[in-house]
Amino acid sequence: MSNDDSGSGADSGTEESRPDREEFRHDPVDHAAVEAGMSVADLIGQYGRAGIGAASVHEAVDVTATMFREDVTCFMGLAGAMVPTGMRAVVADLIRDGHVDALVTTGANLTHDAIEAIGGKHHHGREAAEGRSLRDHDERLRDEEVDRIYNVYLPQEHFAAFESHLLEEVFPNLEGSVSIAEFTAELGRANAAVNEREGVEETPGIAAAADEHDVPIHCPAIQDSVLGLQAWLRSQVAPFSLDALGDMGALNDLAHDAETAGAFVVGGGVPKNYVLQTMLVTPGAYDYAVQLTMDPPQTGGLSGATLDEARSWGKLEKEARNVSVYADATITLPLVAAGARDRLVDD
Amino acid sequence: MSNDDSGSGADSGTEESRPDREEFRHDPVDHAAVEAGMSVADLIGQYGRAGIGAASVHEAVDVTATMFREDVTCFMGLAGAMVPTGMRAVVADLIRDGHVDALVTTGANLTHDAIEAIGGKHHHGREAAEGRSLRDHDERLRDEEVDRIYNVYLPQEHFAAFESHLLEEVFPNLEGSVSIAEFTAELGRANAAVNEREGVEETPGIAAAADEHDVPIHCPAIQDSVLGLQAWLRSQVAPFSLDALGDMGALNDLAHDAETAGAFVVGGGVPKNYVLQTMLVTPGAYDYAVQLTMDPPQTGGLSGATLDEARSWGKLEKEARNVSVYADATITLPLVAAGARDRLVDD
Amino acid sequence: MSNDDSGSGADSGTEESRPDREEFRHDPVDHAAVEAGMSVADLIGQYGRAGIGAASVHEAVDVTATMFREDVTCFMGLAGAMVPTGMRAVVADLIRDGHVDALVTTGANLTHDAIEAIGGKHHHGREAAEGRSLRDHDERLRDEEVDRIYNVYLPQEHFAAFESHLLEEVFPNLEGSVSIAEFTAELGRANAAVNEREGVEETPGIAAAADEHDVPIHCPAIQDSVLGLQAWLRSQVAPFSLDALGDMGALNDLAHDAETAGAFVVGGGVPKNYVLQTMLVTPGAYDYAVQLTMDPPQTGGLSGATLDEARSWGKLEKEARNVSVYADATITLPLVAAGARDRLVDD
Amino acid sequence: MSNDDSGSGADSGTEESRPDREEFRHDPVDHAAVEAGMSVADLIGQYGRAGIGAASVHEAVDVTATMFREDVTCFMGLAGAMVPTGMRAVVADLIRDGHVDALVTTGANLTHDAIEAIGGKHHHGREAAEGRSLRDHDERLRDEEVDRIYNVYLPQEHFAAFESHLLEEVFPNLEGSVSIAEFTAELGRANAAVNEREGVEETPGIAAAADEHDVPIHCPAIQDSVLGLQAWLRSQVAPFSLDALGDMGALNDLAHDAETAGAFVVGGGVPKNYVLQTMLVTPGAYDYAVQLTMDPPQTGGLSGATLDEARSWGKLEKEARNVSVYADATITLPLVAAGARDRLVDD
Repeated sequence: MSNDDSGSGADSGTEESRPDREEFRHDPVDHAAVEAGMSVADLIGQYGRAGIGAASVHEAVDVTATMFREDVTCFMGLAGAMVPTGMRAVVADLIRDGHVDALVTTGANLTHDAIEAIGGKHHHGREAAEGRSLRDHDERLRDEEVDRIYNVYLPQEHFAAFESHLLEEVFPNLEGSVSIAEFTAELGRANAAVNEREGVEETPGIAAAADEHDVPIHCPAIQDSVLGLQAWLRSQVAPFSLDALGDMGALNDLAHDAETAGAFVVGGGVPKNYVLQTMLVTPGAYDYAVQLTMDPPQTGGLSGATLDEARSWGKLEKEARNVSVYADATITLPLVAAGARDRLVDD
Repeated sequence: MSNDDSGSGADSGTEESRPDREEFRHDPVDHAAVEAGMSVADLIGQYGRAGIGAASVHEAVDVTATMFREDVTCFMGLAGAMVPTGMRAVVADLIRDGHVDALVTTGANLTHDAIEAIGGKHHHGREAAEGRSLRDHDERLRDEEVDRIYNVYLPQEHFAAFESHLLEEVFPNLEGSVSIAEFTAELGRANAAVNEREGVEETPGIAAAADEHDVPIHCPAIQDSVLGLQAWLRSQVAPFSLDALGDMGALNDLAHDAETAGAFVVGGGVPKNYVLQTMLVTPGAYDYAVQLTMDPPQTGGLSGATLDEARSWGKLEKEARNVSVYADATITLPLVAAGARDRLVDD
Repeated sequence: MSNDDSGSGADSGTEESRPDREEFRHDPVDHAAVEAGMSVADLIGQYGRAGIGAASVHEAVDVTATMFREDVTCFMGLAGAMVPTGMRAVVADLIRDGHVDALVTTGANLTHDAIEAIGGKHHHGREAAEGRSLRDHDERLRDEEVDRIYNVYLPQEHFAAFESHLLEEVFPNLEGSVSIAEFTAELGRANAAVNEREGVEETPGIAAAADEHDVPIHCPAIQDSVLGLQAWLRSQVAPFSLDALGDMGALNDLAHDAETAGAFVVGGGVPKNYVLQTMLVTPGAYDYAVQLTMDPPQTGGLSGATLDEARSWGKLEKEARNVSVYADATITLPLVAAGARDRLVDD
Repeated sequence: MSNDDSGSGADSGTEESRPDREEFRHDPVDHAAVEAGMSVADLIGQYGRAGIGAASVHEAVDVTATMFREDVTCFMGLAGAMVPTGMRAVVADLIRDGHVDALVTTGANLTHDAIEAIGGKHHHGREAAEGRSLRDHDERLRDEEVDRIYNVYLPQEHFAAFESHLLEEVFPNLEGSVSIAEFTAELGRANAAVNEREGVEETPGIAAAADEHDVPIHCPAIQDSVLGLQAWLRSQVAPFSLDALGDMGALNDLAHDAETAGAFVVGGGVPKNYVLQTMLVTPGAYDYAVQLTMDPPQTGGLSGATLDEARSWGKLEKEARNVSVYADATITLPLVAAGARDRLVDD
């Protein structure tokens, strides 16, 4: 039952004995097995026995652990609704533990990070509710002054509190034309200060951690967020402006000076590309790259593009180790971060 | 900075004090945190603090643990290339531990399960290889007589060994018109027998486990596989045929007699629908349902359809607990299975 | 601004003058332009000037037109909810005009085709309704005895009418063990007969067209549908059974005898694989293949697998022309079919 | 064959005669039919007879035509690799014909638009090439100094020509702190000027059309592109900076003053959100919204989020007409634009 009437088959010796099988020299697939009480490290090990996405998670853990080591300069990209959906502590802890050297993220993530730093809370909600259609549901939330982010809710009064926070703690320290990284650093300082003064939460979040550890936060599209809208409102009433180009030199220098560089990219969008493109103005390129994304490459957009494509641009070294995991990042970020942390302890 | 010039906001009391906020009564989003040395149970707990896919995994673990309890009749659907890609032991162990009462799967999964039972191996491969394009790569594999399943390789001689296995151990015991479940049970018996006699592997896989524990394997589209092609070849030379309808009564009876029923569906396709539709000929419906899929609902296909849709058909009870996880099943199946096993131990 | 301090650039001659540019020998991307009053043929031409999915549609039209020519034996796969969602006439017309030599589809598509043939109608509906949540919505539909397929509704009484149709027009003509293709042919004859007798619709649909033009309909997973459940009910009360293997020889013969063969695959699942695998038992393979799918290849499932992968198995000729369009098939099927028909007229 | 032993069914009257069927009041699904020689307008009409994505395209044409009318202020978002992949003329023509009042796009689209305006060409390429793996392929392209964007190639010398263009035609006219919209307007003027002087192409593209018709181009994440890197290089050697907030007032005013407002969003990312969020600082909201996207909503990211979600934020009016088409935008943008143009002619 084969196109060829080959007498070959199991008889012709072991699988790998055929001299013409140049391509076929790979390890057998073991099978993943799971049990009660197993550790995340065990589970990652089991993934390594399997194929497709499981194998990618295993390899991503390996590459990520390498990137998190001290001698690698790690640039992290963070797109998507990662803070509202509960990934804030995972990211803040990576910064706090010294695994990230520069963060590129969105204004939305910084807005939601600050809201929690001053005591606001996001809430588990739902896409639709008993007794209402999708559309009615969102109309009702509008009436109740609650904003929805997929299945997470945020009462609008937190935006008012956020506005007060900026007016009282952040903007007074900023005058004239400031760079975006200066603005985000000041935000981090203010978040930490309020938190310390009023003790609203145990660990003050991403911007505070970044400020505390001198990790710059770049936010190229800051205008595209409530944080950006507030900055614009400020610019209408005070001598304040944001210099769009002001912090690019520092990021480029960090890339330029990195002996070994890694890109740890969660989600696509501007953070992904901005992390990658910084290598366009340096002689080097990334030695390691991991992306956790759910965007498919077939659309041709940058968000889902393979990391191999970045190689043609010189953003990755030819011999770089790179891996893409195509799955929901709220599942894979904690998994890969936990797995990488295990590896570091084993060192 | 709001459409309404509402004096509302943080001043108007705590978030939940407003009497008009009927929709807004949900728990705050804590944030997931991860650390070295954590267990899978810890990680699942952390997912429960977050939103989107992470929250779905957490809920899926909860519902799956309930379905795996003794008093629930659990129907498992298994589509996709789950055996070649390393999920064979996870599934076989669920059967062996009594968590599955009926399995619906594809002929491909049974083919690949049998190949391993008789000593064949799948191999880690790659979608493309150094020195070759995608197309050249597959042409080369063709020349080397190696079949590719995404990034997994299978040398074609294993199909010859599989053919011998069927001719020597399976077909001789089957005569006349047999049902598909009888055929798959005989395959399981034969897999176990060869394995026991020749000791080719420690644990003999899905069909063997199912036969050993009297779990029927339904395979409605059996023709659509190498197993089906072999059955057809047999029917050309011996008094052998497969009765397409012969095992439907037993499955419907199992559904009919189930006090409480659960659907644990990995991937979409025929296995998903066949598990769900069996409730159309019974007065009851599923009380629990979990699907692990990467197909989006937007295409309107059954594979990605929400489980709510199944409610309109009467396949799920109105009050059923159901959850869908949209992510690569080679990642989520081990995760959810390990998490559910933890819960069962805690009982 | 480049990693290399190359003095190259526009100065170094025209783009293609460099002798080291072996890879770079492609046509420039023109840009698609659209205008009022344009024809589908114009639009397809414009797609050909662009990249990504647009370019794929253009190429798919080209390959499909070739496959639809008389000297190519065309095997069509049709998965997904294509009949309920309005693709019935597109498919029936392709059969009626002689472009399809064998159809592989699902029991669901045949069920819904028959319901319309006897006067039933599917209805535009919605995923959710004013005043109700997704879940409430489906509970309400359950109460109203209306089944939902994404955003299409079907009142349940049509299944009763379908049952009567089978009992009165189809089953009486079938006795003993019949093949699935015989069953679907009888269904087609019955659909046409009722329609002719009662004039319920102008064109009697897919199964009727297939029967009229002697195009076999294969349905390997027929059990997995209301049609299959009805067949099972019949088998409980009358001497009737379905031979799962009975029509495989005819399909294999058609593949074997085809001088030139094409696969036109809409959606994934069993129809896709069954069309492709028939070449495993012939010395030849497909010369042309087009798939219109929304499943991504990253999951490793067969539904989204590239057609190159099929080359390693010997399902496609090494030199076959193949193209995949990754987008909603309810959009691309009419587009590609219309475009291919234009080409045929131009011949 | 139903859970209920209802005597109901076809006997109980026509489908819609049951008084308890409140939900079920929708039109029957006709079936799309296609033929040689049909127009795009015909095809759109046929889509309207079908469901799922086809129905969405039909509705998107309807809403888009309304948005393109003179009395609606239309904000267009353009993300993704739309210019390199051949959508440049479609977009430029919409601007030129007065259908767009403000454009929000990426620095990449503006970079590639300018490259073509000065005579550069993108080229049809491939993801992988004969004789090379994905990785080898991109390494080879790196050696040949050709950048890859999915299946489109761009020789790197065009970036050098682009740099010269900026240095000679754009930057000399900009001094001190300028807004991003001033910068993109100057780029448009320069593109048109070179083109006119040297006649490199018939129609000078998006930025030129926008400048000619006083349509502002907003580009919040301009840093995240080669255009942005060039701006930064300029800022290192000349008194030049970009004011990130400088053009937000004008966009907000346009939204504020719009009697009726529409959002026509191609792709997700920053352009999508920036178009939508401008309504957060106005009393009004969008009356019409169309998005053409391939990102699924399940990831919780903004790119794939339903437009209903935007309603909870007050970005869409409660009674707004909105539709999302989930499919490759290189296919749907020309289709919807052509369809909408047909409607406008019919007015």
